[in-house]
Amino acid sequence: MKVAIMLYNGITALDAIGPYEVFAAVKGIEVKFVAKDKGLIKLDSKMGHLHADLSFSEVTSADILVVPGCCPPNYKSNMNDEDTLNWIRQIHETTKWTTSVCNGSLILSAAGLLNGVKATSHWGSYDLLHSLGAVPTGERVARQGKIVTAAGVSSGIDMALQLIAWEWGEDISKSVQLLLEYDPMPPFDSGTPKKAPSPLVEQLRVMLQELAKQEPEL
Amino acid sequence: MKVAIMLYNGITALDAIGPYEVFAAVKGIEVKFVAKDKGLIKLDSKMGHLHADLSFSEVTSADILVVPGCCPPNYKSNMNDEDTLNWIRQIHETTKWTTSVCNGSLILSAAGLLNGVKATSHWGSYDLLHSLGAVPTGERVARQGKIVTAAGVSSGIDMALQLIAWEWGEDISKSVQLLLEYDPMPPFDSGTPKKAPSPLVEQLRVMLQELAKQEPEL
Repeated sequence: MKVAIMLYNGITALDAIGPYEVFAAVKGIEVKFVAKDKGLIKLDSKMGHLHADLSFSEVTSADILVVPGCCPPNYKSNMNDEDTLNWIRQIHETTKWTTSVCNGSLILSAAGLLNGVKATSHWGSYDLLHSLGAVPTGERVARQGKIVTAAGVSSGIDMALQLIAWEWGEDISKSVQLLLEYDPMPPFDSGTPKKAPSPLVEQLRVMLQELAKQEPEL
Repeated sequence: MKVAIMLYNGITALDAIGPYEVFAAVKGIEVKFVAKDKGLIKLDSKMGHLHADLSFSEVTSADILVVPGCCPPNYKSNMNDEDTLNWIRQIHETTKWTTSVCNGSLILSAAGLLNGVKATSHWGSYDLLHSLGAVPTGERVARQGKIVTAAGVSSGIDMALQLIAWEWGEDISKSVQLLLEYDPMPPFDSGTPKKAPSPLVEQLRVMLQELAKQEPEL
């Protein structure tokens, strides 16, 4: 089984590394980090890098495709880049599972893969996801057919564990969870707009909306 | 506030990227990826790379030090490398918080920082942690004074959120949790040896023990 994780400048590192760590823990899964141009990939924080070992031209198929998200407005670069959208469409033709994390689902939408499809995204991107033709569900992991989309940033871990359970069985998924000691204990219960204090939600919502209006630097 | 995340060949990516993503979300925190020699860093899976933007010689202090873990036996390379241990000791002298994720606590132990200190590690490394002079607590996040150690792999996210709460206050921590949409929903409740099915625990325990006997390749 070959997993292709798409990287790009301006990406959110955990969106990619969460699913990577889950998939990499399963014997027989080969994970590849792929970008339009291989090499160093600038993170959205501008405080570090990931690395793409392969370019799009070197990867023509995958069993699982992962399209991670990013801080707004960085997804726009991908949504307006035909080479990227064509590569996603090409790989999607070959996949058993096509997945996204966070606002990576906006990029899948731009590639035309989410028309009328139940999907999710970062909570700050539901409206944009809807305007692009998808049907936002608000779930942490949404599945329709072979398309599996995950909510914001950290949800890629849950998505990948779920996908492992579907494809490889519950015991493998449980073993990976145990190996990664994924017994989450955040100090607060503030991970969604419904649970977080309203003033903090509104503050972030405004910040994300303002960022989404900008043009990407990366 | 400056956070230095130590990288090394053979590292577990999520150990580093979990805390990175939390710290990077806080305005005013500067995160630096640092290694003995800057450049590409091979992951323990041998299926990808992180990147150190700075070498040890370029970083002489930090407010927060993070020492991530790795698949056994990769920690041995660090535990036997005086340059690495000296750098950790030097940075520790300057920190407000010295932290580790997973068996990164073994490396802190080797640097002499955990003698008689309450600490944690990946569940598969408690015995080794104890033999090195620390007092394993079995907690997900253990704190004694300015030393904060986290359990296996994914726990670095919880550790960093907790540290944000201590240092910057609860609201900042809650905002970061909301931004990362960290509302964990693993499909199973199998993240610790107490919760996972016994046969899976024993299988992993034996595998980890066998790996720990080997010499590191990376």
